[in-house]
This record gives sequence, C-alpha cells and structure tokens, in this order.
Amino acid sequence: MGNYEIGLIGLSVMGQNLALNIARNHSIAVYNRTTSKTKDFMDNKVENQEIKAAYDLEEFISSLTKPRKIMLMIKAGKPVDLVIDSLLPHLDENDIIIDGGNSHFEDTNRRQKNLAEKGINYLGVGISGGEYGALHGPSIMPGGTKAAYAEVSEILEDAAAKTEKGACVSYLGPKSAGHYVKMVHNGIEYGIMEVLAEIYDFMRKILKLEAEEIGDIFAEWNQDFDSYLVEITAKIMKKEDPKTDQKLINMILDKAKHKGTGKWSVQSALDLGTAIPTINAGVNARLMSAIKEERIKNAEQFEKSQNRELAKENLIKKLKSALYFASVIAYAEGFKLLKTASEEYDYNLNYKEIARIWEDGCIIRSGLLEPIQKAFAAEMQLDTLITAEQFKSKLVNSAADLKEIINEAAESELPLTALHAAADYFNSLKSEKMPANLIQAQRDFFGAHTYQRLDAEGTFHTEWE
Amino acid sequence: MGNYEIGLIGLSVMGQNLALNIARNHSIAVYNRTTSKTKDFMDNKVENQEIKAAYDLEEFISSLTKPRKIMLMIKAGKPVDLVIDSLLPHLDENDIIIDGGNSHFEDTNRRQKNLAEKGINYLGVGISGGEYGALHGPSIMPGGTKAAYAEVSEILEDAAAKTEKGACVSYLGPKSAGHYVKMVHNGIEYGIMEVLAEIYDFMRKILKLEAEEIGDIFAEWNQDFDSYLVEITAKIMKKEDPKTDQKLINMILDKAKHKGTGKWSVQSALDLGTAIPTINAGVNARLMSAIKEERIKNAEQFEKSQNRELAKENLIKKLKSALYFASVIAYAEGFKLLKTASEEYDYNLNYKEIARIWEDGCIIRSGLLEPIQKAFAAEMQLDTLITAEQFKSKLVNSAADLKEIINEAAESELPLTALHAAADYFNSLKSEKMPANLIQAQRDFFGAHTYQRLDAEGTFHTEWE
Repeated sequence: MGNYEIGLIGLSVMGQNLALNIARNHSIAVYNRTTSKTKDFMDNKVENQEIKAAYDLEEFISSLTKPRKIMLMIKAGKPVDLVIDSLLPHLDENDIIIDGGNSHFEDTNRRQKNLAEKGINYLGVGISGGEYGALHGPSIMPGGTKAAYAEVSEILEDAAAKTEKGACVSYLGPKSAGHYVKMVHNGIEYGIMEVLAEIYDFMRKILKLEAEEIGDIFAEWNQDFDSYLVEITAKIMKKEDPKTDQKLINMILDKAKHKGTGKWSVQSALDLGTAIPTINAGVNARLMSAIKEERIKNAEQFEKSQNRELAKENLIKKLKSALYFASVIAYAEGFKLLKTASEEYDYNLNYKEIARIWEDGCIIRSGLLEPIQKAFAAEMQLDTLITAEQFKSKLVNSAADLKEIINEAAESELPLTALHAAADYFNSLKSEKMPANLIQAQRDFFGAHTYQRLDAEGTFHTEWE
Repeated sequence: MGNYEIGLIGLSVMGQNLALNIARNHSIAVYNRTTSKTKDFMDNKVENQEIKAAYDLEEFISSLTKPRKIMLMIKAGKPVDLVIDSLLPHLDENDIIIDGGNSHFEDTNRRQKNLAEKGINYLGVGISGGEYGALHGPSIMPGGTKAAYAEVSEILEDAAAKTEKGACVSYLGPKSAGHYVKMVHNGIEYGIMEVLAEIYDFMRKILKLEAEEIGDIFAEWNQDFDSYLVEITAKIMKKEDPKTDQKLINMILDKAKHKGTGKWSVQSALDLGTAIPTINAGVNARLMSAIKEERIKNAEQFEKSQNRELAKENLIKKLKSALYFASVIAYAEGFKLLKTASEEYDYNLNYKEIARIWEDGCIIRSGLLEPIQKAFAAEMQLDTLITAEQFKSKLVNSAADLKEIINEAAESELPLTALHAAADYFNSLKSEKMPANLIQAQRDFFGAHTYQRLDAEGTFHTEWE
C-alpha cells in the first residue's frame, strides 16, 4: 500500500488539468494506457507538484492509500467498462472508483450495481468547466452512496471552483444523480448556446451588424447577465483571424457537432414524459447545421428574402430581452426535467444546491443562478420557475419584446428554432386550455382510444360516424 | 396439420376486425388467451365466415396448414415475447410469425435474429387504419425476408385497402423495415394532428369561431386536401354532445395521450442524427398538454392577452396555407428520416412505393401523397421534398401566408409549437449559412473541441484568450 491519496487514469487535457488542480492540495498518482502521454505530461506540465507517474497499472494501484480512490477521466462508453474490468482484479473491498466523464446515467446505474456486488464503490461525477475549469476549479456534480462520497469530499471540495457560498460541489444524491444532473447541465448549455446563435444570426443577417459591433453589444449586455456563455460570445466576435483580414468567426464553418449529452437529455425527457423544447431545439438546430452541403444545394433553388428598413436600436433592445427570456426558459426546462427525474429515480435532488454549485466553474454559470436559488429557497418543490416571483413579471415583459423579434424574423425568413420553442413553452405552460381535446377526439375517432371529459370522471368513447 | 390458411392471436377490436377482413378471402383460425373474448367474438361478430375458434394453443396451431402463418395482434413489448415463447415448442422450420402490432423496430430486429437461428420466419408488419381500416382494408407495411413475405403476400394483399394503383401493401425491405416505416407513419401522424390542433386553437381563441363554423371551414378545405385527418377534424367539430347542449369537442379534456411511436420516431431520429422538428413538436405538445393541473395553476398567475380587431376572412385563408405548408413539411421530415434510416440500416426503401401504400387505408392518407409519389418518381433518392417541383413554389407561397399567422399568434401569445417548427425547418433547410459557426467557436473556446474553416480543410483550434 502506497501513500498517494488519489489516483487518476486518463491524461487527456481534461485529465491533466484536473490532476494538476488536485495536486495543489493532495498527493496524486497518474496513469495513462499510452505511456508516452504520461511522460509528456510529467516532462512538460508537472513542475514540483506531488504527482507520481505510474507506467503500469499494478504500480499505479499499489501507490494508493486504502480505501483507494481512483478517478477515471476517460471517454464515456465502452472505454470505461474496459478500464473497470482491468482494475477489478487489483481492487479491494471499499475501494472507490470515481467516473469523472460524461457517462450515460443508465451506464452509471449499471456499473454501480455490478460493482456494489463486489464491495467496490462507484461514484458518478459530472465535471463541468472545460480545460480551464479543470485546472482552476470546475463545478463538480457527484452522485453515489453518501459514505463513498464522504471519503472523497475533501479532495473534490479542494479542487472545485469557489464562491462566497462555498465550493462548487455538493453531494447530489444516490445512484446516477451526479451524471444525470451533469447531463441536464449540458442540455441547458445546448439551449442557451442555440439562443445566442440565433440572436447573433438576427444581428448579422437582419440588422447587418459586423462581428465587432455584435461583440460590443454582447459585452455590454453581459454587465447585466454575468453569464460565461455571453462573455465568451463577446470575446469570440472580436477575435481576429490570423490568416485573413476577417474576424475569425466569419471564417468558421457552420456545422455544429455534438457529443451526446444534449441528445440524451431530450431522449430521457421523452422517456419521462416531460417536454424540454428549447433544449430540444438546441439539439435539432445542430443536426440541421450539420447538413451544410444539402443546405447550400437547397438555397440555390430559393430566392433570398428582401432587405428591410429597420429600427436597429429598438430591435437590439428587444434582442436583449429575448436572450433573457429564452435563457430563463432553458433553465426552467432543465430544472423541470431534474424534478421529474428526481421523482422517478428517487434522487431526492436539492434544486437550490444544484443552482449554487453551478454558480462558478461550469459553462452555464450566470447571474440567473442567484434568483433561481432564491426561487427554490422560497419553495423547495416549485413546479416551474416561470411562476417564481424572481422571474414572473420579467418574463412577461421580455416575452412582449420577443414578439417583435419573432415578427421581424418571420418577415425575413430567419429560423428561430430555440426562441420559438421558448415562447411556445412559456405560452403553453400558462395556457389553461390547450387544443389537445381535438387530438383526443381524433384518437378516439380513428382508434377508439377513449377520452376524458371536462365535466365528469372516467373515460368515454363515442361512435363518431 | 389442419386446413386453415392463417391463424391470428389477439382478439382486441383491431384483431377481431382484421380476422373478419381476412376471412372474406381466406380461412382463418383465431385464438385469444382469455377464452371468453374468443367466445364473445364468435357469438357476436362472426356470422358465416370461415373462422375457426381455437380455445387452446395446440388446437390453434394444429389447425393451420404448413408453413404455418400466425399473425400476432397483441400489445407491443413484453407480451409479444411471451407469446413467441409459448408458440415456439409447437412450431416447425419455415413457419412464419407475423407481428402486426406497433413493435419497436429494435425489438423486431432482435426477434427476427433469434427466430432465424431456429429456422422460424418473423415478419414485422405495420398496420394502419384503426378499427375501421382493420375491417375494411388497412394500409399494411411488411418487413422481413422476401421469401417469407411471398408466403403471406396474397393474404395481406386481399386484406389491404385498394386504390386504382393496387393494394395498399408492398414488401418494404429486410429486417425491421416494415415496423420502422410504420413508426415514421405514426410520427407524421403526430405532426399533422398537432398542426390541425394549432389551427383549431387559432380559430377558436383568436378568431373566436364556434366549433360548428370551424367544422364548416375544415370540410370546405378538405375538398382540396382530401386528407383523412382533415376530414375527421371537420366531423369532430360538428358532433353534438348527447349529455349537454354543447358540441362534444368543447367537453373533451385537453390532455393528450400517446402510445410510443411518436416518441420512438424522435428518439430514433436523434440517434440517426437527423432532425424531425415538426413531428418532435407534436410529441412535445402532447406532453405539455398532459400537465393540465399545473397549467391551470400557472394560468391564474398571468393576465390573459387582449382581444384584437382582426380581418377574419383573410386569416382563415392564411390558415389554410399554414395547414398545407406544415403538412408537407411533416411528410418531408418523415421521408427524410426514412431515407436516413434506410441508408443506416440497409432497408433499401422505395419511397415512392411507401407513398403509394399510404394513399388509402391509413391515418395519414391525403391528396399530398400523389405529388409525393411524383417527386420520388422524378428522383428516387431525393434529399428533401421541399425542393421537389411538386412543392417548391407552393411552399414558398404558403410560407409567406404562414408569416401572418405567426405574427398574429405572437401578438395573442398563442403557442404554435408545430407551425413554428415547420417554418424553422423550411427556413433552416434552405439557409446556406446557419449560425452554427458561433456554436463551434464556443465549443472550441471552452472545450478545445476544434472547428473547421470555410477556406481550408482540416480541423483547427484557437487560443481564444
């Protein structure tokens, strides 16, 4: 048995940075299957931190104190299972594997169950913050048994981002609670990124603004939003391309990629029977962007829409409202999905605490997380953020502004996939009557699926013809 | 060995009606686990057709000619596996099981593979048309091996709806091709039903029309649309409630239910990386409708939008365009999903033939299927229906009309989940430039995910700060 407090497997940039971060406060051993990567890391990144490079798995494992704490920073999916299998013969009861990747929550449930039978603890831990966060303090979302978490809490707290309210890490719940919350975090990220993309698109295509001006506007707005994604959008707009005399943003291909968590959020929401349309729109818009070649071919067959005379200053103000509105809706959808999942999977989530640990370190950190915490402090089991005092009247006002954006985009044939979805979500959620009575009538007409009535209990069937 | 040409298991209304339909041309044995259901069926529905009631499974199986043809009309999921397991000991090589339910295509692939190892054929057959179609001629979508299909093709052709082009059944492809096509059929159905629901909602809430008037309008429109769903919508609007002095539609609870295939279409599209936003909107809107109690509670907290002075006749015309536009888009999304799936799963689908067998018997039969066939006749591997000569200029014109509907709905805070999605799908698909360059820049900024450039091959990473 060795003296190193924790071990980390997987020296991608995220893994390297997290190891350097942890090493500021705790001794750490690192291992990577490809030995050269470990050597590179030790030679070029590690200075005098207490980091031990292990070049085989046995050496790595024997360097750790018991119960061993082994963090995996490897690609989600099959690789995680393979590494677990390779570790198993060397582990003892009560050892703890910490999966720090974006594993699917159902994989985490399965692994936890299998390992628990062998006496091994498995924590599913979401980590957000990208490369920078991993090094300087990410937001960390752990799930699993409380006892296993207690063994690693000090290390994770020391590594996490800090606000005046504490470290951006908190025990979230049993089983896959951590990975589920991280998945929804990423879902919200997809939603807000698409909202920003649509507002950018409106500015360049309808208002004919240059990237430099757009960057100024986002930077100014961010004095109010205090949002990481708005902040980097402003910086992106101003970045020069070293290869041309253009802004770099103008030279980037408009084919967005994705890595699963956004899609999983939508698929899980569907399985749980809850709608997250703004997040869903973020995923769909990326898929539409990916067929660039087809879009070019199609575009040749249609006339471009006409330029119009516009009140630019006014529309810019309305765009700011649109950004506020749709960002709140993206969080509202995410928290509603969390609530549904918590009830279905017995995660027993604390929504206020989740909003707190998202306040720094992670990609969706923003000034909106403070009022979100207040909303959940006032009502722990709040059904939807849209009725919270912190948001209600602001949403009504910004929704009114959004109407102008929707009208102008319709005239100019600009897609507003996420902004439309956010408006429809809000308007549906506050509609006493939706037209689903027609859908139920149709289903009963063609399939005898029965319907319910407004004025009586039970189910009914009608011979419609 | 018996003399009955085919056997049918599962005497729900669909199963009963299909048995009566088949019995017009072929001898058929029926079996149901609950014996009383079989007896009821024989006593009350069967007159002098050649239908044999079997009251145990062995009797049922021994009444069939070889190779035995056994159609399952039972609830998708576990029940299908249980029935297969109970049949297996009694079956011989080359016997054919025909799954006529809405099984998930992946279940169909699994069952086909397992049964093929035992020499048993398994056809996954989608059947659309509801109770009426089952009795009078449904649209039938079979998939599996061509040889097994050949054994049952005559029976299925005789049972199917007929148009002047032939029977509404056709061998669609190997493996789960039939169930996949049926799933997408239902996805399109979800999309068009939601479009109709939104147009109805616009008419009653914004135009303040009564159900009777709305019914007249849909009936008049349907002289052009020739669509089953428009037809039944018109009839539904005019149906009196026997219990009150209201139209029945006004007494039906606006909580829509769903049975899986719409959700599966969306989840499968996400897995295949293709967007079907109008269909997706149909699913999401049903989920939003289901939380009626929360909607009522929320609605109390917001002011209602004001009534406005409107040019009714003009808006009714535009609504007709909106219905045309979004219906075409729902089909366009569905056929694009079919193309993606056909390429991924080697179904080798014939899109023209699919449109042909949807022309009668099924729920989405409509006048649009004729121009869809023409579009695929002109270009078998057409990427999208929106550029087809049959639709292009009509879509442009109706999209222009839809703008007015979108503007008016925005003013009145009416959700237009599917209509917005359809407009955004169309506008995205004909956009040379989407704003995904920003999303790629953001992903590279926070996660070093790299991006592509417009002016050079390869992937690039920038140090943004």
